[in-house]
Amino acid sequence: MEVGICKQDMLQKKKNAVLVDGVILNGPIMDSKAGEKFVEEACKIIMEEVIQKANDVTEKVCEWRAPETLKKILDLEMRDTGESHQKLLQLCQDVIQYSVKTSHPRFFNQLYAGIDYYSLVARFITEALNPSVYTYEVSPVFLLVEETVIKKMIEFIGWEEGDGIFNPGGSVSNMYAMNLARYKFCPEIKEKGLSSLPRLVLFTSEECHYSMKKAASFLGIGTENVYFIKTDERGKMIPEELEKQVQRARKEGSAPFLVCATAGTTVLGAFDPLDEIADICEKHGLWLHVDASWGGSALISRKHCRLLHGIHRADSVAWNPHKMLLAGIQCCALLVKDNSGLLKKCYSAKAAYLFQQDKFYDVSYDTGDKSIQCSRRPDAFKFWLMWKALGTTGLEERVNRALALARYLVEEIKKREGFQLLLEPEYANVCFWYIPPSLRKMEDGPEFWQKLHEVAPIIKERMMKKGSMMLGYQPHRGKVNFFRQVVISPQKVCLKPTCGLMSLKV
Amino acid sequence: MEVGICKQDMLQKKKNAVLVDGVILNGPIMDSKAGEKFVEEACKIIMEEVIQKANDVTEKVCEWRAPETLKKILDLEMRDTGESHQKLLQLCQDVIQYSVKTSHPRFFNQLYAGIDYYSLVARFITEALNPSVYTYEVSPVFLLVEETVIKKMIEFIGWEEGDGIFNPGGSVSNMYAMNLARYKFCPEIKEKGLSSLPRLVLFTSEECHYSMKKAASFLGIGTENVYFIKTDERGKMIPEELEKQVQRARKEGSAPFLVCATAGTTVLGAFDPLDEIADICEKHGLWLHVDASWGGSALISRKHCRLLHGIHRADSVAWNPHKMLLAGIQCCALLVKDNSGLLKKCYSAKAAYLFQQDKFYDVSYDTGDKSIQCSRRPDAFKFWLMWKALGTTGLEERVNRALALARYLVEEIKKREGFQLLLEPEYANVCFWYIPPSLRKMEDGPEFWQKLHEVAPIIKERMMKKGSMMLGYQPHRGKVNFFRQVVISPQKVCLKPTCGLMSLKV
Repeated sequence: MEVGICKQDMLQKKKNAVLVDGVILNGPIMDSKAGEKFVEEACKIIMEEVIQKANDVTEKVCEWRAPETLKKILDLEMRDTGESHQKLLQLCQDVIQYSVKTSHPRFFNQLYAGIDYYSLVARFITEALNPSVYTYEVSPVFLLVEETVIKKMIEFIGWEEGDGIFNPGGSVSNMYAMNLARYKFCPEIKEKGLSSLPRLVLFTSEECHYSMKKAASFLGIGTENVYFIKTDERGKMIPEELEKQVQRARKEGSAPFLVCATAGTTVLGAFDPLDEIADICEKHGLWLHVDASWGGSALISRKHCRLLHGIHRADSVAWNPHKMLLAGIQCCALLVKDNSGLLKKCYSAKAAYLFQQDKFYDVSYDTGDKSIQCSRRPDAFKFWLMWKALGTTGLEERVNRALALARYLVEEIKKREGFQLLLEPEYANVCFWYIPPSLRKMEDGPEFWQKLHEVAPIIKERMMKKGSMMLGYQPHRGKVNFFRQVVISPQKVCLKPTCGLMSLKV
Repeated sequence: MEVGICKQDMLQKKKNAVLVDGVILNGPIMDSKAGEKFVEEACKIIMEEVIQKANDVTEKVCEWRAPETLKKILDLEMRDTGESHQKLLQLCQDVIQYSVKTSHPRFFNQLYAGIDYYSLVARFITEALNPSVYTYEVSPVFLLVEETVIKKMIEFIGWEEGDGIFNPGGSVSNMYAMNLARYKFCPEIKEKGLSSLPRLVLFTSEECHYSMKKAASFLGIGTENVYFIKTDERGKMIPEELEKQVQRARKEGSAPFLVCATAGTTVLGAFDPLDEIADICEKHGLWLHVDASWGGSALISRKHCRLLHGIHRADSVAWNPHKMLLAGIQCCALLVKDNSGLLKKCYSAKAAYLFQQDKFYDVSYDTGDKSIQCSRRPDAFKFWLMWKALGTTGLEERVNRALALARYLVEEIKKREGFQLLLEPEYANVCFWYIPPSLRKMEDGPEFWQKLHEVAPIIKERMMKKGSMMLGYQPHRGKVNFFRQVVISPQKVCLKPTCGLMSLKV
């Protein structure tokens, strides 16, 4: 171990050493110079191996190893004594080598990708400062930044006022909203719980994110009390079906309290018709939450914000700038139209050790009690620095470009033999089948679909092992395995037919 | 805006430009060279202004500005067009300048402090790679690392096997545990919810963290169904009182299901008697969760692990290595004794788009469905790299040193006029009053305490504005405002009487 000083040496050097319980107190436990040097050397590796290679399409997306092999390559075990800096730097190299390069131009596997240099810098600052965002005294800058960012996001939603909180993920945002709607419906739940209450029921579409079920289960509502509303062939909630289900719930004697619409579904990228859903919510006095974790970023684009028409009528919105806008994982806001302090009333526990009321500054800036967390990361900050750097126009370009790329991809798929579009996308999710030559002349029927179902996993395996591309696939509501490609990376895209996406026939 | 290339230029340069919806697709939207240079320059600032100054006791802990002033200094507004790199670098400087230096040797305000170079490097790697930890295909290294770290933590708890998940905060860990205990008690809750069930009741001490209330409210249990058990004068749960309350709950016809003991309370640093509590839990068939978010790190020390005697009998444990071990915010594990897949059964939603079952590798490595989150950060990684660097012995030294510093502080407080210890600490929380000269000869009585109550906020204000030190204070269970000091930073500590803590009489 390079860092750390031998106790004997120190005792000899320091005659006035203060020894308590076998520990020398008045000496550094760390060699900070060596530590700083280690950070510098590691930063060089990060710069060369991750950041500079992010743009390089000739690099592998991943250096695939099976779990058992990778365990052997990486020296995972933690031992009694530490490793040398040299060994540790090698370890950092290995970690990078065998990790997936999510910023690679051909990483299309999830709803995030790419690298944004400004967000990255903000994240490095965050890690170095190591703040926790709950009180103004500990996080003055980050709390003001969060307030500013939330205000700006609220403008794009179209509310005149509101409130919000950044939290660790769209799933958690949805939980926040569900609990907030429930609190609004019956504030007593905070103290009394659900046991004496009628069965609470919420509504969301069949195409919603799986976090709806997780939230209902976690919050004690129960997954059976999530009524899934039928969608049309494009994956959009059918308002008439919602109306029917609300009436059914009322007839059953249960207590409907919430509709969760989705703006940008995970698989198909569908947008629920918010205006019509808002009408139904108003009529029945239901909270309207919009899960715009994926689709929210379209609000930044004057061209594409119409996809979320009616969102200003929502009571709460989940929106993840870490997806299409590239703010870095995680950057997720829950935004709430209410400005009467509902978020705080619902979530506060008034811990006296943290939220002292006799502070010398305006304690309304101590916003941590709006959170289900205690320590919380300043996720708004990276979005803020990126926004400062690119301007709203730069963010808008990012969205427009992603959707133009999707459009291009769709047209190419239509032209090309062996590719079949699942449906015309509304958003950036391009869903398609690749039909290998052996299946192209087969008759449509169960056997064809069964065989086609096996194609995507096989191609995915080949691409992974080659490191050429990462692309998600899934079966979905009766449809056999198909690819879902989302191109949001701002890096150079190669459109040559022999390259990238178009070379699926590996 | 320096980054970004003028469209006209590009069109002229590229004759084969592909234009879709007004967007040129086959060109870089970012100037990556300029971006990389920006990252390099910002890293230099971070190195000089944050990392190298972390050890410097002559620097200010914070450059305090009131909210309204700070808003004016920082140019918070996000505009349509972006800012120049020069302006952005200045902004980074400002953010750093006006942020609290939580790694400063005199930051004693929370239960975290200091800087660890290895954890920091791991965090930089994480931010550059931008992974999300749910499937092996996307996060091969980080999932294996998490598995290894959890296994090792479980060893220190003393379980033969187990499971676990890193998540965003001790509060969230406690929620996980509460929901898991409830699921174990009645698996039907996942689908049915709580509405038809008897009133669920859980028990925790009066000194527990406020997240218990937040969790009970969030999970639909209700804060009134948290039965707070009396503690002794040191803040430890009284087992006989627990027994009484369990019996009371049974008589009421409610359904007790969980005891949450605390190992290291937030304010006093008290450890509940786990062995005796485990006896009661066994007798009544209750799940035992130990919130060792703060105290868990003592498990690493052969000298101090006795504080958690009996923890191996717990069903679940929350443990935050980001506190005393300095792994960086956030680094929090929920550990579960059950090894039959309870965590997965309780939390899974089986999203087909993410957790495909026809993958080409062993999908048991896709552990994301154990989580309430979808995207999740690889928080185990920073702990792992730090552990590799320091070895178990290095981590142990960190704990031993923190507790030796607490011991030293206690002895100094006892010696010094005007300082009064609240109680002999069990752990690293040193709670004391500073009695200013004007109050030293005053008679003990309501007036004395009322005046003393006002002292800590005033001293805190002075220290904050001077930037000399940050120290938490709070009133607590009938006791007027007192300071709580926790010395966990591994940096050099100055023990001169005129310096730091001992110069409170500013």
